[in-house]
Parts: sequence; structure tokens; C-alpha cells
Amino acid sequence: MTEVDAKKPQESLQDRLAQVVELLHRHKVVEDLTHRQEGQHQDLVENLVHRQNLAELQRKLDDLHPADVAHILEALPLDDRLTVWQLVKAERDGDILLEVSDAVRESLLADMDDHEILAAAKEMDADELADLASELPRDVVHELMESLDAQQRERVRSALSYEEEQVGALMDFEMVTIREDVGLEVVLRYLRRLKELPGHTDKLFVVDYDGVLKGVLPIKRLLVNDPERLVSEVMATDPVSFHPDEDAYDAAQAFERYDLISAPVVDKNGKLIGRLTIDEMVDLIREESESEVLNMAGLREEEDIFASVWKSLRNRWAWLAINLITAFLASRVIGLFEGSIEKLVALAALMPIVAGIGGNSGNQTITMIVRAMALDQVSTGNTSRLIRKELGVSLINGLVWGGVIGAVAFLLYDSWSLGVVMTAAMTLNLLLAALMGVLIPMTLVRMGRDPAMGASVMITAVTDSGGFFIFLGLASVFLL
Amino acid sequence: MTEVDAKKPQESLQDRLAQVVELLHRHKVVEDLTHRQEGQHQDLVENLVHRQNLAELQRKLDDLHPADVAHILEALPLDDRLTVWQLVKAERDGDILLEVSDAVRESLLADMDDHEILAAAKEMDADELADLASELPRDVVHELMESLDAQQRERVRSALSYEEEQVGALMDFEMVTIREDVGLEVVLRYLRRLKELPGHTDKLFVVDYDGVLKGVLPIKRLLVNDPERLVSEVMATDPVSFHPDEDAYDAAQAFERYDLISAPVVDKNGKLIGRLTIDEMVDLIREESESEVLNMAGLREEEDIFASVWKSLRNRWAWLAINLITAFLASRVIGLFEGSIEKLVALAALMPIVAGIGGNSGNQTITMIVRAMALDQVSTGNTSRLIRKELGVSLINGLVWGGVIGAVAFLLYDSWSLGVVMTAAMTLNLLLAALMGVLIPMTLVRMGRDPAMGASVMITAVTDSGGFFIFLGLASVFLL
Repeated sequence: MTEVDAKKPQESLQDRLAQVVELLHRHKVVEDLTHRQEGQHQDLVENLVHRQNLAELQRKLDDLHPADVAHILEALPLDDRLTVWQLVKAERDGDILLEVSDAVRESLLADMDDHEILAAAKEMDADELADLASELPRDVVHELMESLDAQQRERVRSALSYEEEQVGALMDFEMVTIREDVGLEVVLRYLRRLKELPGHTDKLFVVDYDGVLKGVLPIKRLLVNDPERLVSEVMATDPVSFHPDEDAYDAAQAFERYDLISAPVVDKNGKLIGRLTIDEMVDLIREESESEVLNMAGLREEEDIFASVWKSLRNRWAWLAINLITAFLASRVIGLFEGSIEKLVALAALMPIVAGIGGNSGNQTITMIVRAMALDQVSTGNTSRLIRKELGVSLINGLVWGGVIGAVAFLLYDSWSLGVVMTAAMTLNLLLAALMGVLIPMTLVRMGRDPAMGASVMITAVTDSGGFFIFLGLASVFLL
Repeated sequence: MTEVDAKKPQESLQDRLAQVVELLHRHKVVEDLTHRQEGQHQDLVENLVHRQNLAELQRKLDDLHPADVAHILEALPLDDRLTVWQLVKAERDGDILLEVSDAVRESLLADMDDHEILAAAKEMDADELADLASELPRDVVHELMESLDAQQRERVRSALSYEEEQVGALMDFEMVTIREDVGLEVVLRYLRRLKELPGHTDKLFVVDYDGVLKGVLPIKRLLVNDPERLVSEVMATDPVSFHPDEDAYDAAQAFERYDLISAPVVDKNGKLIGRLTIDEMVDLIREESESEVLNMAGLREEEDIFASVWKSLRNRWAWLAINLITAFLASRVIGLFEGSIEKLVALAALMPIVAGIGGNSGNQTITMIVRAMALDQVSTGNTSRLIRKELGVSLINGLVWGGVIGAVAFLLYDSWSLGVVMTAAMTLNLLLAALMGVLIPMTLVRMGRDPAMGASVMITAVTDSGGFFIFLGLASVFLL
């Protein structure tokens, strides 16, 4: 189904989701009854109601765009998800599999036998097959490849040879190509013979006899120019194009910046080998920001919201374990000062304030920096300027809020020197948070890592251990 | 400049940014010299070099797409930004102002006088003017409105009458409309007379004599169908369309789901009043995820990375102040148990572990939930199921990691009862984190708030105070 066939939803997607859930619920109530009650007559009636419910659900699903069915599958717990999946018409399986997230796709594929998977995959284009191949059983992939013609097989192989975040893995092969030495009238007649144009065709690709890209003919220009003119007179030479080994995120940013709808992909010799389209790029932009949010909290991206407890555990354990180690280190820092705490137990009550505010402030800084780095707005060259600014912010925050909390400490424990130590410790810990909030992501990038990776866990580790050390250290020196 | 004119960058954007910074640096070195040294001859030479540098910089900038200039302006500190801004040709000011972020735009507008702003704004379309109007000085807006013709003025007024996150504020007015009772040949001839088509024209809008939308004619269909056929035979009736008061984020999701490039906006009577295009929607998707990341850390969205210290402070103070209060409350919880800590100082060293792991785990949960809510995958109806799952994850994490840390506590302090209390407290605090990680965003949504708003600060508040209370409470009861 292409974009022009999408019908205006009469109800919002939320409403339709609610209707499906309602029908599923009725279906389950009936099933429960059927299982519990005996008697043939009873059984028959229930069975009838049961089947009516499922039929209504199926009708509902048939009316929906594959992307909407995919959305509903995402939003359902596993058992309901599989009930709905079994009701979806087989010929739509392929479209829907391409729309769902990786985690949900895995759960759907696990429910299909090889025969069903093969049938679904046979409807797909080469680039779509390549997307899916890594998740399919080996022998299914083998059988699929056998069934393709030589060109298709070559395309799947080529797409599979690129990393997931390279342009080559995201390009499709649905280009309409023309020659530069023909008139626009000829092009118009040629298009009419094609019967249908691929989705997102906003430009035709002008190539020579060796397949080398000479330019692009935007459909807009084809439409407004005199049909007598030649393609070469009207085409845009030197258009934005990409190489298959380029970073796909850079390509997505270029699409965003130059408002592109499609763009050619050429090899080293300038030969046209595929094209990128805005729909793939939008998915990428969405995914990129998604993984950034999750990475900062120390989550991998694959967890779906209704994943099993076991899967969720695997997703979250790595960073929890790291956090356990950092928390243990912070605890040992406190252990160093047990003598001081024994003498002045107020320290135990006040120390988490110093650590906590530092953590919050550090998280603000690191979030800003990671964000700006994702948008290519800062490079490691700006480090010192950014550190100066963040230190300025922290110094003022430390003196103002540290002063407030110092005053509160004085009122609570009636010791002005405790108040001063509190203010000084807060200020120093905020300065430390600012410094590390800039340095951690910058260092990760210099090491070639994702700056968002566990950023939150790391900055909190620094501000906890650092905060306890600074506060208890100052207190031991000046108060005891 | 439209998308077809965008030239393939020979160097990456990062390289070009580096070149601009290099030229700026040279410019400043020369300026410093000129200021420091006396003597007319010296002055003349320096001035010449100075002017050469600026001329080279200006040439560089003239070669760049407005979106690239915008990107470079974003990535420069204020003084450098204004130097570059002054070098940009006046006729490009408008295009660039539309590309930069709100925060940077404010800094650029502050540097322009009314006359320059008026000149830049005069090049803009009605929807672009409306975007900018709220940031312009009042008398400039007034003068601008005076200079518009009646239709344009009406359009600006209409766009201004919608909230920022409504479809009406994002639509443009560059629709090409046709009648349904003409042949495709006539449409083709009509388009040729237009000389140029608006950007992102993938479909023509079919309206009746009252301007009511009857359908859309995708350009693809116009190209492949027999020119003798009528528009009414070929057009798609019942296309995806939007109302001006609909939520713009819902529209963006529809664009993403149905792979749309443009879509009509109609009023209550079905009259065509504007259109949405994918480029605006991509910006919205980007912005949405951006503000989600920032909101979770308790930041507003307007801060640019090189904002002044004062602006940064205003951006961050609100949540820091809230954090200060929650940290103070956690401190008072500890204060309740000062007697226990005095008796067993190990408690002071161990309690931050319980609080810290709870905070980390709670942040993982809340991040997952906020994410899924932003994607409309969970509704408040799923609450109990999600709570059960998250409680399951936490129970296992608590028993496993709590067991590990309990064992460590036993080894360190040689008290098996302390180890058991540690394990129990960790498990309970993780359960609390899971419960609140689901309930906080769900409650915010029920109250009509953004679920991401300060999510991180709130969950940490709960797991800190809760963790201290649970651990110190259990210790007081069972150990002392």
C-alpha cells in the first residue's frame, strides 16, 4: 500500500486501539466461559459468540493501514499481540513485519512457521529483504535467495554487505532513470508506459550509457518546462548524492537540512546504484533520538514495553551492575570518614544533599552537551569554552543554593561553621559536576564511543563519590 | 533556495565549520595586532590582511546553503556568531533566520535594527512570517502587516490564531488547486503556465467552486495516466487530511506512518485552507524528541549551548530548586534516624547504595514508560499490567543484586544481620522505584501534563527518601 492509498482515519489511532482491545477482551471472556462450562448446548452458543467476535475483530483489522496494525501490535501484550497477528490476512504479513520495531518483529516471527515466513518475504523488495534477513532462520534465508532472480539476489547481497548505519543498508533500488539527450516529451511518454511510479519519486535520475549519474530531473521541472526542451537543458547537475559507505545519520541530517525527498546513491566511479528516500530517513531520525534517550538511562534500544521480565532484566543488567560498583565505591568513600560521622552524626544527614544536587546539576550539563553533540553543534575543539561557561553557571548555583542550604544547616544544627562547610562543599561539588559533565561526553567521543552511553550513571557516580569526599573531607578538617 | 538547488557538499559540514572557525580566528589575531600596534604604515598593512580574511570568509559563506550557514551560526559562540552574521548577504537573512533555533534567532534579531528586520521579513511567505512574528518587535510587526496585501494579511492572522502545537500554525498556503471536471492534458498545460511549482508538491488539490476539497491528484498518477482522462477519474478521493486545530504531533505521526510528503488542511466545512509538508513534520519530530530528553533532566528547550551564564541559570533554576527541596526532605528522613546512625555508623556508609541503585533502576523504568507514552504505545489503561511486569523485574534485581551487596556488607562489617537488612532494603526500594516509575508518568498524563517533565528529578526524590527510610527503618527495628 503506498502513501496515496492511505485513507483518512475516521477515528484517532488511540480510539481504534481501544476498540481492538475491547474486542480482544470480549473474546477472552467468552473463551474463559467456554473452558469453564460443560454441556454441549452451552458450548455451541459460546462458540458462536466467540467466532462472531473474532470475525468482527478481523474486519476491523482488514480496514486498517499496515502501519496502523503494526502500531496496535506494538501496544499489545504478547498473548493479545499473537491473537491479533493470527487474524491478519497472510498477504499483509510482509508489509506489517516491515513496520514494527525489531523487538516486536522478533516476537511475531517466533510465532510463524518457515512456510509462512517465506510467503511473507516473497512479496518484498530487495532492500526490505535485506533489512529482515538477519532476523530470519538461516534455511529460510537460503531458500529465499534461491527463489530470487540474479539481479535481485545481487541487490540483497549488496545491501547485506553494509553495516546497519551505512547508507548502503538503507538505500532502495526503485529508481526511474532517463538519458540526457532526449526531450521532455519523450520522458513524459516513457513515464506513461511505466503505468506506476515508485513511491517518493520527486526526481528522475539522468544517467549515461555506463550508468554514471549525470544529474537529476526534478518532476517539478519536468512539469513546468516546455516539452520540446531537452533533459540536459532542464536537469540539475551536481545534485546532493551519497556514497553507500557514508554514515546514514549524516545522510538523514542532509535530508533534513536540504529538505530532500529522494537522493541518488552513487559508487566511487559515480555510477548510480540506488536511492535514499525521506521515509527511511524519518525513521532514522526517530530511532536516533530514541536510542539517545535510552542510552543516557543505561538501556539498550531493543526492549519493547511488554517484553518478558527476563528480556527486560538482560536489557538493564549491564548498567545496573556498573551502578552497583560505583555506589559501592561511594560507600567506601563514606567508610573512610566513619570516625568523623561518629563524632558529628549531622554529617550523615547532610551529605546526601551535597551529592544529590551535584548529580542533578551534572545531569543537566551532560544532557545539554550530549544533545548538542548529536546535532553536531559542538566539537571537542570547544571544550575549554564550554567548561568555562558551565563552571560559571555552577559557581553561581553553588554560592546561591549552597548558601541557602548552608543557612538551613545552621538553623537546624545551630553551628555556623557547619553551614559554611555545607556551602563550600556544595559549590565545589557543583564545579566538579560541571567539569565532568563536559569532559565525560567529550572523552567518550574522542575514544570513538557514543557520548550518551550511560552518561547519567557515570556523572552520578562522580558527583556521589566526589560529593561525599568533598563534604566529609572539609568537615573533618574544619569541624572536628 | 529550494531542495533541487542544494549542491552536494564537497566537504562535510564539520569541515566547513572548521574552516569558518579558522578564518574567524585569523581575523581576530589580526584585529588584536591592529589594536595593539601604533604607526600608520603598520596599520595599513594589517588592515589589508584583515579585509582579505573577511572577504575570504564572506566568499565561503556565500557558497553555503542557508541551512548550512544556520548550522554554523548555531555552533559558534555569540561574538563569532555575530561577526559571521554581519558578513551574510542581507537578502539571505530571511532564509537563515527561518532555519536557526529559537534561542539563536533571538541573538541574531537582537543584533539587527528594525530596518534590516523589515527587509528580511519582506521576502517571507505568510506562514513563515507568522512563525517569526512573536519574536519581532511590536512596531516591526505592525509595519510588516501594513505592507501586506489583504489575502496575505488574512493568512498571517489566521496562522497566528493557532497555538504553536496546532496544525494551523504549521500549515503553508502554497497549494496548487485544480477542478475535477477537466482532463489531465489541461492540468499539464496549466502547470506549465505556472513556471514554478511550490516545494514538496507531490499532489495537486482538487476543489470545487466553493473551495471544498474533493480529492487529491498525486503527481505520480498525473504522469502515468492517459492525458485524455478526467481528473475525477484519476484522483484519490478521501485522502488523509487534517483540521487546523488538530494536534501537530499527531499529524507528524500520521506523516511518518503513512509516508506522506504533503497533505491538505481543511476547515469544518471541508474547505481547503492550507497544506502540511514533510519538512515541517521532520522538524517537529526532531523537536519533540529533543524536548523530551531535556524535560527529563529538568531543562527547558530554549537554551543554546553558548547561551550566556545568566540565561543558562534561568533555564536550570526551577528544577534545581525543586531538587533542593526533595534533597532536604531526604536529609530530614536521615535526621529521624540519627540515633541509630550514632550507634551503628556503618549505616551511614551503606545507605547511599540503597538509594542510588533505586534511583538508577527507577530512571530506567520511567525512561521506558515516558518513551512508550510519547509513541502512543501505552495508555493509562495498561497501568496495572506494566506495574506487574516492572515489579517482577525489580524483585529479581533486588534479590540478586541486593544479595550480592548484602554479602559484601557482611564481609565488610562481619554482621550477617546487617547483610540481610541490606538485601531486604534494596529489594523493597527497587519495588518502590518500579511502582513509582510507572505511576509518576501515568499520573502526570492523567493530570494533562507532559509525562517527561522533570521525571528524573521526581523518581530520584522518591527513591532517595524512600531508600533511606526503608534501610534505616529496618536497621533500627532489627539491628539495634
